[in-house]
Amino acid sequence: METAIAIYNKIRVLSKTDILNPQISELFIEIYRVCSEILQLYSRIPLVSKIPDKQYFVFQKEKRNSRAINVALFIDDSHEVEKIVGFIFRNQLDFTNPRDITKALYTMAISFCSVIDLFKNGDQKTPGTFFEYFISHWFALMLQIQPQVSIDVLNLDMRTSLPTDCIFDLGPNRPKIHLPVKTSTRERVIQVWAHQRVLDGVYGTGRFLGMLVCLAETKTDKTKLEVTEICLPDQWRLYQMFISQMYRVYYLDIPTKYVELNNIFPPINVKQFGDFFYEIKTLITRG
Amino acid sequence: METAIAIYNKIRVLSKTDILNPQISELFIEIYRVCSEILQLYSRIPLVSKIPDKQYFVFQKEKRNSRAINVALFIDDSHEVEKIVGFIFRNQLDFTNPRDITKALYTMAISFCSVIDLFKNGDQKTPGTFFEYFISHWFALMLQIQPQVSIDVLNLDMRTSLPTDCIFDLGPNRPKIHLPVKTSTRERVIQVWAHQRVLDGVYGTGRFLGMLVCLAETKTDKTKLEVTEICLPDQWRLYQMFISQMYRVYYLDIPTKYVELNNIFPPINVKQFGDFFYEIKTLITRG
Repeated sequence: METAIAIYNKIRVLSKTDILNPQISELFIEIYRVCSEILQLYSRIPLVSKIPDKQYFVFQKEKRNSRAINVALFIDDSHEVEKIVGFIFRNQLDFTNPRDITKALYTMAISFCSVIDLFKNGDQKTPGTFFEYFISHWFALMLQIQPQVSIDVLNLDMRTSLPTDCIFDLGPNRPKIHLPVKTSTRERVIQVWAHQRVLDGVYGTGRFLGMLVCLAETKTDKTKLEVTEICLPDQWRLYQMFISQMYRVYYLDIPTKYVELNNIFPPINVKQFGDFFYEIKTLITRG
Repeated sequence: METAIAIYNKIRVLSKTDILNPQISELFIEIYRVCSEILQLYSRIPLVSKIPDKQYFVFQKEKRNSRAINVALFIDDSHEVEKIVGFIFRNQLDFTNPRDITKALYTMAISFCSVIDLFKNGDQKTPGTFFEYFISHWFALMLQIQPQVSIDVLNLDMRTSLPTDCIFDLGPNRPKIHLPVKTSTRERVIQVWAHQRVLDGVYGTGRFLGMLVCLAETKTDKTKLEVTEICLPDQWRLYQMFISQMYRVYYLDIPTKYVELNNIFPPINVKQFGDFFYEIKTLITRG
């Protein structure tokens, strides 16, 4: 457990100076190995799933449970995870596919979060920050660009700096990426559309492609050992119609109710995160 | 302490069925009396104030401190508080003034919040919910209208219900009031402008007057016993320019940095809450 936290701290420090440092990729593999070994010591308790066609379990340590883990996405064999991730590192995407990448990255992310759940009661911040570094790393790798977390605002007599989620600036005459990252969204998600709206207003609509990345939307009832998904699709539709337009929403464990948003008005493109690796180059050249 | 919580629970139950029930006004007086007596048992520790021209103290119970209390706004004499509030109940606003009303309501609100701070470690929810009922009560009294907390959305083929902050519907051809209430705002405040934007989009700009009511923006360093105000005026300006336009922001303990927003672009009307009682009738007839 101390080893996991130590590696996490190294990732934090290195990411701040150079997120493209290849050491960070290795540290993500290393932290996954450590967490995977820790989790093998604990038993798995199946949950009663209220979500159609999805099964979940939790790891249990005495009276503490981890967050819900999707059975179909969790890869038990750590060599398999490392093999898939290796294809990303070596830019051999043809050797794997979006579904397997989603599963491998889901397994890596949920393993670290679950270890924190088991050892640090009520700590939401560490999994959240870890997940931000984790997702930013894949974006940075694929785009070969360092992210920023604030941008200058010049507006007639006003000059200020706006703190933002991760921003990737692809250079002149190309779109920029606005990347909010959340382990889950709930009612706070309106902030994502509102930040996108401010960027649209300050820099012009279409200048920033808003890409939200989330881990999952599960909620576990600890006494009943039941798992549900908290989704607010109608509110997302109102936000997409009246606040701003998000360009993509990627999930590692994609909720069924949000998949449906792809097919109704207003269109919101909600996809599994593995798709990002295969479409990003097209998206940014098309703008 | 149990008495205070019992009265608070009565307020909650009664407010849900009829917020205009005159018993609720009496219960707010009663809960204030109880809290005022409790606080007299504890010593006051002055804080080192990093805010120009404002002095603060905390109540201390063993190792627990209450939130910071503004010396100039806190009325020690509970009869004085009851006298001022009596003028509101009897609609005799000419006998008092905006500053005294602000002080009386500040004293009532901060007394309950401080009791919770001293007795229930880390409970942010009870003070927050209390403050919502407290502010909604004054709005309901002045407007003689029951609030709603969700509204119907009819948008071509979409029919849904949008959960909102308190909404006061003044009837056909008159503006409606959108009333978010927060004990403090920090970085979550963007939600307020975003909700206003959705209302503008769904019902037409200007239909809803957005009125945000806040208690204070103080932050206390517990070891140094220092108090500061956390204000983000440049971000508020961006939200007011690019997300939506809030019509009023009222504070019980108004931060100096937000007062300045009244005089620069874009105008944001930030006032002490006592002003609400004197201007509301003009505002809603003018629309």
